[in-house]
Amino acid sequence: MEWTRRDLIDLQDLSKEEIELVLETAKSFREVSTRDVKKVPALRGKTIVMLFFEPSTRTRISFELAAKRLSADTINIAASSSSLSKGESILDMAKNVEAMNIDMIVVRHKSSGVPKILAEGLKSSIVNAGDGCRSHPTQALLDMFTIKEKFGRIEGLNIAIVGDILHSRVARSNIWGLTTMGANVTLCGPSTLMPPGIERLGVTVSYNLDEVIPKMDVLMLLRLQKERQEDKFLPSIREYAKVFGVNREKLKKAKKDILIMHPGPTNRGVELSADIADSEYSVILDQVTNGVAIRMAILYLLSGKKGAE
Amino acid sequence: MEWTRRDLIDLQDLSKEEIELVLETAKSFREVSTRDVKKVPALRGKTIVMLFFEPSTRTRISFELAAKRLSADTINIAASSSSLSKGESILDMAKNVEAMNIDMIVVRHKSSGVPKILAEGLKSSIVNAGDGCRSHPTQALLDMFTIKEKFGRIEGLNIAIVGDILHSRVARSNIWGLTTMGANVTLCGPSTLMPPGIERLGVTVSYNLDEVIPKMDVLMLLRLQKERQEDKFLPSIREYAKVFGVNREKLKKAKKDILIMHPGPTNRGVELSADIADSEYSVILDQVTNGVAIRMAILYLLSGKKGAE
Amino acid sequence: MEWTRRDLIDLQDLSKEEIELVLETAKSFREVSTRDVKKVPALRGKTIVMLFFEPSTRTRISFELAAKRLSADTINIAASSSSLSKGESILDMAKNVEAMNIDMIVVRHKSSGVPKILAEGLKSSIVNAGDGCRSHPTQALLDMFTIKEKFGRIEGLNIAIVGDILHSRVARSNIWGLTTMGANVTLCGPSTLMPPGIERLGVTVSYNLDEVIPKMDVLMLLRLQKERQEDKFLPSIREYAKVFGVNREKLKKAKKDILIMHPGPTNRGVELSADIADSEYSVILDQVTNGVAIRMAILYLLSGKKGAE
Repeated sequence: MEWTRRDLIDLQDLSKEEIELVLETAKSFREVSTRDVKKVPALRGKTIVMLFFEPSTRTRISFELAAKRLSADTINIAASSSSLSKGESILDMAKNVEAMNIDMIVVRHKSSGVPKILAEGLKSSIVNAGDGCRSHPTQALLDMFTIKEKFGRIEGLNIAIVGDILHSRVARSNIWGLTTMGANVTLCGPSTLMPPGIERLGVTVSYNLDEVIPKMDVLMLLRLQKERQEDKFLPSIREYAKVFGVNREKLKKAKKDILIMHPGPTNRGVELSADIADSEYSVILDQVTNGVAIRMAILYLLSGKKGAE
Repeated sequence: MEWTRRDLIDLQDLSKEEIELVLETAKSFREVSTRDVKKVPALRGKTIVMLFFEPSTRTRISFELAAKRLSADTINIAASSSSLSKGESILDMAKNVEAMNIDMIVVRHKSSGVPKILAEGLKSSIVNAGDGCRSHPTQALLDMFTIKEKFGRIEGLNIAIVGDILHSRVARSNIWGLTTMGANVTLCGPSTLMPPGIERLGVTVSYNLDEVIPKMDVLMLLRLQKERQEDKFLPSIREYAKVFGVNREKLKKAKKDILIMHPGPTNRGVELSADIADSEYSVILDQVTNGVAIRMAILYLLSGKKGAE
Repeated sequence: MEWTRRDLIDLQDLSKEEIELVLETAKSFREVSTRDVKKVPALRGKTIVMLFFEPSTRTRISFELAAKRLSADTINIAASSSSLSKGESILDMAKNVEAMNIDMIVVRHKSSGVPKILAEGLKSSIVNAGDGCRSHPTQALLDMFTIKEKFGRIEGLNIAIVGDILHSRVARSNIWGLTTMGANVTLCGPSTLMPPGIERLGVTVSYNLDEVIPKMDVLMLLRLQKERQEDKFLPSIREYAKVFGVNREKLKKAKKDILIMHPGPTNRGVELSADIADSEYSVILDQVTNGVAIRMAILYLLSGKKGAE
């Protein structure tokens, strides 16, 4: 299997074999970050631009560390969406950045489709670090890496994605990735936050978390955007926490080795109780650790270097 | 020719020979940015501070990349002009930064003269990255590099600088540089935006772009600050675009190999139409590319390293 | 003497021997910053995070340069205190950052105790870069380094700390450090800004700067926060400057080799007159220079590398 892509825009572009190659490559980079000298010379002399139109401390740092541990030079651009509201002017701005002979642009934008517009208009590699409600491919890849790390496989596992499916790019990318890898995916959340017809993506839909929990190997909890309440999608945060929040009581009927995942940052007391976030079930910090390895793998593969094997 | 300067404050400080040395040095660095490993060890262990009192994504990134590709360490300081409004306190602040054994300060400030104040008060090399309406020497150098790249020479070319001459540091630096290099410079713009008596600098003044275009080898368009309209310098943006905006219609009488230049960011539909910005005449992205090479050359020469030849 | 600590939270944790080890280690790093190539490979491949909840250009840059000159990779996080107001959520955020396999966190926060909370909850090395009114250990260490550099010793020297003692973390850390090293410390300032009972820390208290000056080897002036006037701690800035501001007139009765120190940034005309700030007595810029060396020493020692000797 050889990597041939220049960009990472959507997870649905990737085949099962390509996802496996990313996970395999990440495995070798996972080890680099545990060394005394956490650095390999793979991307020395490459320039990677972090072009973030949405504020994001975690994802930006994760990519920046990934780039630095590969010895690339990094440039941060914290752009405000307001001053560059139209697709055309974003592309124009990115073309200017590209003209400085940079190699990759890691981009986050609140509008779906911006990474794709850049990929079509530029010669540099574009990495989608989250666009609107559409896609967050490296998050799904690190989630899959973490699941595989714990269970040794993804195929055949029962995985529930819980919460605001409607607005979640994390959910969308995971649905694609997990079904491609052969997992049985259940979506669970309030009906107001469940996209109609989503079953067509090959997933099961449920509105009852208590019924779902006993069968699951993994609960992937989504961050609740508190603004949604004002948008009338939710009666109250408290009501949501009661019905869809995970706590020790609700886990009584769960499998003993169930994994609790969350893309962070968590709202403790909402999506999950504080004790569950810190419990033996939680792999939330493993996800963060693996995020750096996945991003190293993606930057490495997109740079045209050969993947593992 | 040997480089002896410690600072780059104004282009009028430089002789024709010095400008040629910068352009020649940039030529060799231009190639570095096209390599697989875009890095040379020239300034390893040097510390270069980007002290930007005005927000500037492009120029800051261009200098930062130049420094990184020379292997220098960079520090970004985005200072607000408000908290440091007096010349004395800026110098005091810069002296503190200098006390950390830094080597160069790249400074941008909305007040003319700030780089000069720093150069007089400090021992570090000061590079002017734009001060008020006064000077933007690296922009003029990259413009001259781009012209020479396309025509093989600057001497004898007919070059029009078009737009808001009054408030433009880009215009001021280019007037000095281009006349020093032997070009015939014409300034063209609304009379309200033309400094009275500017002909004394050895340039021709015109208020009619249509008359100017046929003779020109280069049209250097200036960015229109939209605030100028509120300042009553302009009747309307639309009127400006009609009279001084460059479009395919206006270029019908132009020489076939005319160059369209713009320091960016462009206001498409104002200074030039979108199709002209992306046309065969436009070297706007070449200017951006060459900017990194020019800034590498400047940082390199100011560091006391010998120039090319 | 071997260094065994993982964190630097408060200066009162350090023994006299440990302080001496830091000063000795800094001495060797002091020289690195004067080299042509200001860089040693000591912390290559380490990741150091600057987590600043309070804006601070100087201290942040000093740490960042220290890290870079040790060849570490640095990540800047400018966090707003408002979004992370509770201790628990700061720890949660820091745990997420730590999960990316970082080695050290340099933290500044307006609330006393935040660095300690992080040190207790994390495995990474925590360096306190200033917390509330409590502690600023690297500032006191660089002050002691500067005093020792000038006098060859600290023991037995008469040192006055002048100004707003009540709100000053710089004062608190210096009181601990200087008394530990055997200096005779006098605190001098308005009674409203003097913590009651502070004599118990082994210091002398005075409200009369004119009486204090003749005996002193060192005057350590504190920055006056102008907000204090609104808090009713001060009748007026002008009154403060008259009574506690140092000028040439007040220094007439001083020892000839008295040192004037200030942690910066100075309010010229308030804590000291402009001519004194630039005078032969002032070592304010030496303090800044030595700050980088002290921070290199701290980062180096905390990383588990052996100290000097």
